[in-house]
Amino acid sequence: MNAPTATAHLLPEIRLRPVPQAFMDALQARFGTQCSLAQAVREQHGRDEGSMQAPPPSAVVFAESTQDVADAVRLAAQHDVPVIPYGAGSSLEGHLLAIQGGISIDVSRMNRLLSVDADDLTVTVQPGITRKQLNEAIKDTGLFFPIDPGADASIGGMAATRASGTNAVRYGTMRENVLALEVVTASGETIRTGTRAKKSAAGYDLTRLLVGSEGTLGVITEVTLRLYPLPEAVSAAICSFPSIEAAVRTVIQTIQLGVPIARVELIDANTVRMVNAHSKLGLREEPMLLMEFHGSPAGVQEQAETVQSIAQDWNGNAFEWATTPEERTRLWTARHNAYFAAVQSRPGCRAISTDTCVPISRLADCLLDSVTEADASGIPYFLVGHVGDGNFHFGYLIDPDSDDERMVAERLNHQLVARALAMGGTCTGEHGVGIHKMGFLLDETGPGAVGMMRAIKQALDPKNILNPGKIFEM
Amino acid sequence: MNAPTATAHLLPEIRLRPVPQAFMDALQARFGTQCSLAQAVREQHGRDEGSMQAPPPSAVVFAESTQDVADAVRLAAQHDVPVIPYGAGSSLEGHLLAIQGGISIDVSRMNRLLSVDADDLTVTVQPGITRKQLNEAIKDTGLFFPIDPGADASIGGMAATRASGTNAVRYGTMRENVLALEVVTASGETIRTGTRAKKSAAGYDLTRLLVGSEGTLGVITEVTLRLYPLPEAVSAAICSFPSIEAAVRTVIQTIQLGVPIARVELIDANTVRMVNAHSKLGLREEPMLLMEFHGSPAGVQEQAETVQSIAQDWNGNAFEWATTPEERTRLWTARHNAYFAAVQSRPGCRAISTDTCVPISRLADCLLDSVTEADASGIPYFLVGHVGDGNFHFGYLIDPDSDDERMVAERLNHQLVARALAMGGTCTGEHGVGIHKMGFLLDETGPGAVGMMRAIKQALDPKNILNPGKIFEM
Repeated sequence: MNAPTATAHLLPEIRLRPVPQAFMDALQARFGTQCSLAQAVREQHGRDEGSMQAPPPSAVVFAESTQDVADAVRLAAQHDVPVIPYGAGSSLEGHLLAIQGGISIDVSRMNRLLSVDADDLTVTVQPGITRKQLNEAIKDTGLFFPIDPGADASIGGMAATRASGTNAVRYGTMRENVLALEVVTASGETIRTGTRAKKSAAGYDLTRLLVGSEGTLGVITEVTLRLYPLPEAVSAAICSFPSIEAAVRTVIQTIQLGVPIARVELIDANTVRMVNAHSKLGLREEPMLLMEFHGSPAGVQEQAETVQSIAQDWNGNAFEWATTPEERTRLWTARHNAYFAAVQSRPGCRAISTDTCVPISRLADCLLDSVTEADASGIPYFLVGHVGDGNFHFGYLIDPDSDDERMVAERLNHQLVARALAMGGTCTGEHGVGIHKMGFLLDETGPGAVGMMRAIKQALDPKNILNPGKIFEM
Repeated sequence: MNAPTATAHLLPEIRLRPVPQAFMDALQARFGTQCSLAQAVREQHGRDEGSMQAPPPSAVVFAESTQDVADAVRLAAQHDVPVIPYGAGSSLEGHLLAIQGGISIDVSRMNRLLSVDADDLTVTVQPGITRKQLNEAIKDTGLFFPIDPGADASIGGMAATRASGTNAVRYGTMRENVLALEVVTASGETIRTGTRAKKSAAGYDLTRLLVGSEGTLGVITEVTLRLYPLPEAVSAAICSFPSIEAAVRTVIQTIQLGVPIARVELIDANTVRMVNAHSKLGLREEPMLLMEFHGSPAGVQEQAETVQSIAQDWNGNAFEWATTPEERTRLWTARHNAYFAAVQSRPGCRAISTDTCVPISRLADCLLDSVTEADASGIPYFLVGHVGDGNFHFGYLIDPDSDDERMVAERLNHQLVARALAMGGTCTGEHGVGIHKMGFLLDETGPGAVGMMRAIKQALDPKNILNPGKIFEM
């Protein structure tokens, strides 16, 4: 860990590369109506859910097969034109912005479930299927895919950004749950990594290298995932605490005891107020934990009793339980609506989200110092967290037209990242680097590791056409 | 998956590269008595537990610090001399053989526990510490490191080969349990990958790329690992079955039901006979499962009852339980002694071990067809398996002086790998590729993925000095 020296990029550096007419002609000849030049389509594909902007790509190819992706990449490689894979558009760090120009390859039409092997707890899908579509498609198997980043993201995009979310404390992230990939490389070649075996020691772990590479090493065209048996029993609970510290200490002890809790989310008092105003939930306006337990009926009860006992030691109160799906949904409303409630609490605002993740023993210190700073800044914010993993998000609610507010929010984020890195944590638990956190990545890993990443990128994409300008500068 | 086209390498290809006298002089000047040229020391470092042989390295450097490793690699880089990292010498696939000459860097003196963060369930160690030394050093924390490949391997070596073993069905492999690394690169630079945070989306997953790279991308000089709370209750059981199929079907159903079993090992009747002869255990000479359950007392009991009920459906009998450490040790004697009992059953023999891993639904088919082939061959063998992961090992007990027997064993292994690949499995669940499985790796992943590995190797080690000639040809 190095002392932070760079702030997050406030604005992307735009360096448009030429897109030759010969390339555009060849692209349209190959793809016909699958290739759109319409301004609205291009603009939709040139942004994500983050707060940064850039000119749109020159064209959008709607790929319907691996062959389509391979042909588009091969054409782009011939003409040195950047390609940016696009799934559901829900990334947050500028991943989809065409900051060096080029084309977008939209894989949302590649959304088929290719095979489900229920006996092996595996499924193979095309990259454009979303996590909700996937769970709908396998609902009769008694299995489910647990990774839930909030947005109904595409599986390809979730793999590309190493996504996780509320269930990761129990089931891991995309890192642990992608078994195998099919990928189109920078030259347009199609390769396969991994197998359906649960473990392997067969050479370099290309699957894990590609998961989280944000489209810079290849375009994912097939994903094989682990599935899990639907738990026999599920129980949810909410509990209020007199302070964030009391809530977080409850989580820390729960994890340290090895309780296999499936979800444990923090919402601060501030955010509970916003949710109450938005959804009329009448919740106690105190820091709150939302929890979920998966297992056998007896196991779930045992877990819940253990956590309730820990929570009581920290003066947790207003424990409320839910075991039916309807009751659970009601309890989780606060968490699900937090983002929208927060954004609506300040009309016209834009949320700048942080994503630090720290070792669990440092979670309380990291959170509390950052809350103090945020309170002092005067910028309204919400605070939610996948606290079982040590991961949490401040959302600073800024006026998008105010450079001052943006600067204050970025400074708060910068201070938070510096604190998290000093505590042995990471600048991004699950959102990825994109263009927004390139400086933070350097702070976190040092130039040696980024140099190794750069050497790999140079070797696998010598023309730098795959989502160029993301993660690190070449 | 491609149809197998190449057999395993029967003998390593030896292409010794020059080791200039100027290099040897510089090495001895820098390392003095830490550098040994003694024949016995070099020979000990030029082999592993596999059955292949090559001339020993020219020297052995006993590194005592990261700086020692960096200096040795830097000198080697200046003179284009291969370096082979050495931990405990327990690898199986020729990983340690100096097939292109060069020097061995022995890290066994770098065996300190650097920091244990019990509250975060993490520990940072030097690479030469063995797994038993590690567990001994942390025994007062209430935590343990579960990965158990059988041998008392070094943690650095286990990371380098992506090891796993009996506990992986519950706790994962080195892939899931290494959080961060310090590594000396091919130029002698020291870099860090990962943090102590439980999850991260910060750039390429260099940690996972280096885990399993078998010393070909860097020399590991520090490892940060996940630890786990010692389970409140542990219960072990053995159960005999009328057939391998019945035992394996019991395992398949257990996994499919999501029972969080901590260990489930198969021993075939043949191997039980060898163990009885060796250790006078008086076990029923039938296929047997050895199981272990970790959790709360109630949770362990519930798991055990579920599995016992499944086993009864498959006519399992002679269930025997153990809850005290002494009783558990007795039950596990059969598994722990299987290798030695097998090797002693044929004096002077050498075991050639297979390592396929298949999706669990195919485990019975894969095993049974391979048992039929092995029985027909006339070569004695033992059969044990981490069957909860779909991973198992035949050990063909050959006369090392008989080329015929070696050929038959390699043919059996070849047929088994072909079968496993056709079933969506891998040629190696946990031993790695080394020099023995290079052909199989190509069969498994195809030339595209191996080409990607080769490009990464070329980029990160342009002089090909880091354990050259392993995993794939350059």
